Amino acid sequence: MNETRKRVIVENVSPEIDCGRFPARRAIGEKVRVSADIFADGHDFLAADLLYRKTGAPEWNTKPMSLLVNDRWEAFFVVRELGEYEFSIQAWVDRFSTWKNGIEKKSAAGVDISLELKEGTLLVREASFRAKGRDAELLKNKASYFDSEKQMNQNLPFTVDEELTRLMSFYPDKGYKTEYARRLYICVESPLARFSAWYEMFPRSCSREPGRHGNFQDCIDRLPYIADMGFDVLYLPPIHPIGKTNRKGRNNQIIAGPEDPGSPWAIGSGQGGHRSINPELGTLEDFKRLVSEAQKHGIGIALDIAFQCSPDHPYVKENRKWFRLRPDGSMQFAENPPKKYEDIYPFDFETESAKSLWLELLEVFRYWIEQGVRIFRVDNPHTKPLPFWEWLIAEIKKEHPDIIFLSEAFTRPKTMYRLAKGGFTQSYTYFTWRNLKWEIERYFQELTQTVVKEFFWPNLWPTTPDILPEYLQLGGRPAFLIRLTLAATLSTNYGIYGPAFELCASEPKEPFTEDYLNSEKYEIHHWNLDHPGSLKPYITRINRIRRENAALKQNNLIFHPVKNEDIICYSKHSDDHENIIVVVVNLDPHHTHSALLKLPVKKFGLDEQKTFQMHDLISNARYMWHAGENYLELDPKVVPAHIFRIRRHVRSEHDFDYFM
Amino acid sequence: MNETRKRVIVENVSPEIDCGRFPARRAIGEKVRVSADIFADGHDFLAADLLYRKTGAPEWNTKPMSLLVNDRWEAFFVVRELGEYEFSIQAWVDRFSTWKNGIEKKSAAGVDISLELKEGTLLVREASFRAKGRDAELLKNKASYFDSEKQMNQNLPFTVDEELTRLMSFYPDKGYKTEYARRLYICVESPLARFSAWYEMFPRSCSREPGRHGNFQDCIDRLPYIADMGFDVLYLPPIHPIGKTNRKGRNNQIIAGPEDPGSPWAIGSGQGGHRSINPELGTLEDFKRLVSEAQKHGIGIALDIAFQCSPDHPYVKENRKWFRLRPDGSMQFAENPPKKYEDIYPFDFETESAKSLWLELLEVFRYWIEQGVRIFRVDNPHTKPLPFWEWLIAEIKKEHPDIIFLSEAFTRPKTMYRLAKGGFTQSYTYFTWRNLKWEIERYFQELTQTVVKEFFWPNLWPTTPDILPEYLQLGGRPAFLIRLTLAATLSTNYGIYGPAFELCASEPKEPFTEDYLNSEKYEIHHWNLDHPGSLKPYITRINRIRRENAALKQNNLIFHPVKNEDIICYSKHSDDHENIIVVVVNLDPHHTHSALLKLPVKKFGLDEQKTFQMHDLISNARYMWHAGENYLELDPKVVPAHIFRIRRHVRSEHDFDYFM
Repeated sequence: MNETRKRVIVENVSPEIDCGRFPARRAIGEKVRVSADIFADGHDFLAADLLYRKTGAPEWNTKPMSLLVNDRWEAFFVVRELGEYEFSIQAWVDRFSTWKNGIEKKSAAGVDISLELKEGTLLVREASFRAKGRDAELLKNKASYFDSEKQMNQNLPFTVDEELTRLMSFYPDKGYKTEYARRLYICVESPLARFSAWYEMFPRSCSREPGRHGNFQDCIDRLPYIADMGFDVLYLPPIHPIGKTNRKGRNNQIIAGPEDPGSPWAIGSGQGGHRSINPELGTLEDFKRLVSEAQKHGIGIALDIAFQCSPDHPYVKENRKWFRLRPDGSMQFAENPPKKYEDIYPFDFETESAKSLWLELLEVFRYWIEQGVRIFRVDNPHTKPLPFWEWLIAEIKKEHPDIIFLSEAFTRPKTMYRLAKGGFTQSYTYFTWRNLKWEIERYFQELTQTVVKEFFWPNLWPTTPDILPEYLQLGGRPAFLIRLTLAATLSTNYGIYGPAFELCASEPKEPFTEDYLNSEKYEIHHWNLDHPGSLKPYITRINRIRRENAALKQNNLIFHPVKNEDIICYSKHSDDHENIIVVVVNLDPHHTHSALLKLPVKKFGLDEQKTFQMHDLISNARYMWHAGENYLELDPKVVPAHIFRIRRHVRSEHDFDYFM
Repeated sequence: MNETRKRVIVENVSPEIDCGRFPARRAIGEKVRVSADIFADGHDFLAADLLYRKTGAPEWNTKPMSLLVNDRWEAFFVVRELGEYEFSIQAWVDRFSTWKNGIEKKSAAGVDISLELKEGTLLVREASFRAKGRDAELLKNKASYFDSEKQMNQNLPFTVDEELTRLMSFYPDKGYKTEYARRLYICVESPLARFSAWYEMFPRSCSREPGRHGNFQDCIDRLPYIADMGFDVLYLPPIHPIGKTNRKGRNNQIIAGPEDPGSPWAIGSGQGGHRSINPELGTLEDFKRLVSEAQKHGIGIALDIAFQCSPDHPYVKENRKWFRLRPDGSMQFAENPPKKYEDIYPFDFETESAKSLWLELLEVFRYWIEQGVRIFRVDNPHTKPLPFWEWLIAEIKKEHPDIIFLSEAFTRPKTMYRLAKGGFTQSYTYFTWRNLKWEIERYFQELTQTVVKEFFWPNLWPTTPDILPEYLQLGGRPAFLIRLTLAATLSTNYGIYGPAFELCASEPKEPFTEDYLNSEKYEIHHWNLDHPGSLKPYITRINRIRRENAALKQNNLIFHPVKNEDIICYSKHSDDHENIIVVVVNLDPHHTHSALLKLPVKKFGLDEQKTFQMHDLISNARYMWHAGENYLELDPKVVPAHIFRIRRHVRSEHDFDYFM
């Protein structure tokens, strides 16, 4: 019963993930809109403050919250530093506003207010004791004025002046304030974590000379090509020595030929393990040169961390306790019964030596961070314990809050989401298999319009070295254009596996599988980057559109109805609605489709009575549209998409020549 | 890092209200279906137990949970005692099932399984150490059999026998089990709390002699009338002495005539306060006789607890600190600026004497419980602090877990819900103003298909002494039939304010107000219960249908689409689907409407190829329906509704003469 006088309830706070167990995720410079249900018994006016600070800062910052509707209150703050912020809410009965409302209504109705004035005097006087300096003086004066005969004898309806209202709001009586039950957290990431275009490439396939194993110098030579297309992350499959025992041959054959280079994911040999470099790629110095040269092109190098070992990995000899031993003393290899993967030993996270295993794996990340790597793509994180990742990422982020972890968890939804909650910055998604309009809409509504958006940042990949979806096997070049456009605009983060993607490699190993024929996982390729059919110009254009439009740096996705199941339409907008992008894609790679499209012009801030320009940033064509239904037609053999920027004021437009 | 080996995640548990801050509500005998997302890294098989017990019991009961789909697991328990239950979840990696799955697949594929057999031996042997008695022996024998040459040399595909599977499931290795982070609670209520039909009546209007003030003996004489209709709660407005100072006259006039009895909600006079009885109604002994006579009719007496005082209440003299004093020493009366209610002083819950006020108000409940009252309708609980009710109800429930509290909170949704979370058993709702099909559907979907259903038990009132909705003012007798039918079938709990309701009193004080003309709140009525237009026979029929159909004792409401906005259709079913009730109501009190209705026959467990009987329990007519669209027509001037029971097996039906 000590709490008897705390009348205000604060509940249903957003963002709050699993009762505050996990932080919400934001990038530097982004807003955190905090809302809550705040109410009390009766009809008194309430007031509430949002409290926030960088975790560990000595003082709270406060922002007054505003009532929206239906007892829902809101305020926001902007996160300006990497790392962790914390926030909470305080709310209290606002006696002064309650009094002000009452006395003004009574006075307007001609009711005697002399007692109310005396009560106001007391409220203002109490506030003056809480105030300091000039404010205290001002409040004292206000209080005596109320009390004076002059006020009493006025015949005008009584209103409280704005200055007093403002002053009183600075010195509320928070004696019985309610504090929200839980402290909540925000994990602040780098801008690149929010907005990035990834390019995946096998270094060993980068040599221009047929037959030669590519190396880091070849990668450096390839940087301008990648930078020109507009990518800002270059992601390399594992660069470590590759095992020889049970090495896989071309097309995943069980027995490798003498020249077969093996899969980069079969990590470790006599030449070293997870902290070593395959000598055929170069030295550590070469690698560090690649990192710094890439940086000059505005490109970050992402390493692939795959926690598994070939039978030749040094760990296998030196740390047998990290693996599962079978009754005959042999080591348990990876399997998916009845299939066996004899080229790989998984770690045994149930080992009694788990602690030393965890610490060693943390050191692997630390090692590459020391070499200048800030971005990691983590292979199959869902086959390692979820608490392990939560611990590891927290340890790294304590020292390096800018590090980006991309989770390659192509697994069940709950696990995918839990990995993101537990710290992964970005995540692979089901986008790779979502081709139809209804399934794209439903999935992206889940990702962008539910609590999922607070912690799960999608990174969309049309293909990976493991996955050549049927849609791309059958749809030809138009299918590649369609999937690229969707990936680059549905999410702020996307990536392609090149040069296979821009060269439209689409032949599967066997029909009805998703494996590439002659996959780069098992052999070295020499791609003809100058192929006339290359998507390079289109990709370059799309990445430029992404960079030049603030709307595409947000995940505030809205789908718009189109009466054609083959045409999808969605829009994104900048926070201030200055930049509005409308994307229309023909999802059928085989046929031309047309549709009538009606946009929510009023929501877009457009005049319903006037025409406006739809500027297609892909073709640079401009169309005059109106509030009604507008005709459009998309031939996938030409370009299967429009990326419109809405342009309002034709005459005064500053950026008439904005694009091309 | 102590938790390194706990790999299983348990999250998103249901029922869980506000992170476990509040219990879910169930009635004795009901199931608590507990579900959760349970998953781990990798592909190991998992197992989970639901733990539950009466709070305070020394041991947990456990039930194995089953995987539904998409990592969602479920189990249920039945609550059998009033009071509080607690539950939690434990989950662990099921090594034996994982092994069983692997060895069976490998064996079927012809892979050598000798090592797997050895591993199985170890698992079974470990389990035998955890087992006791005969089970331990059995497991030991099984283990050696695996290990034997006999097994090795079999050529048949290996399968684990069922007995072993069963035995192993009894003795799992829970060494690294995960326990759900929070303990969750269930508040178990009486069956009457879940299923009740209330009748509100002013005792002073019960006298059969015109002009005489009714009393408790008149109430006793009225009991057969109420019991015949099928009501099980008789709710009386406040029975305390009524204040004289500023007493309101007929039709809420500011000045009362000398004969005006005043509003029962202006509580307290020189004759006593909240623990006293208005002498005109009788003595405490008379009241206790009413309670016990009612009990003989299967009726519980519900008292109205309105925590407010007339200026003549003893508290006003004896406990001035419980009220707000103004600067001139006068006492603050109730107001809604600029309106003043000078016949009532509210308690000041912000008083420094709050503790003694809380304790006294608790004693008011305790006093009436001692007199035999088990049901309370609480007047305007939303104008008293929410923490106060949470404390008070918990205090009462500790001693008397069967007590029912009905919250008369006609207020904003968040406050209504919070009162229910905080302990109120039943709640008034917006039903009173939801007349159109879409608004009824939307509201009842919120009440029955979201987390709201876990704590908020609606009690539907078509009218109250304060509220005569426009729909009933304009719709005549058919409107009363419609609203009665909806109230009695949309929720398990409903009530009417009689005899005004069954006599279709529909005249407002003024047009466009919801006040009754000549409201009983301010004067004594003498109702003609024998009026030929009385709804008594219809109400009797409806209450009988409610009692005889298990489906109507559940809130598992499903709305069915009807292509006529004036016709609403919904169904309810018993847990075993044996009893399925389909309600169809014409919402237009003025015109006959017809519709074609297609039922989800497959979901109802009916044969799509056969006809079935729709037995209208109101008219006793039977219709032959089929899986397609069935025609129906409802004339509100005859009966505006069907309450169908679906009857499956015409020939063998035991209860052919089931009704009438």
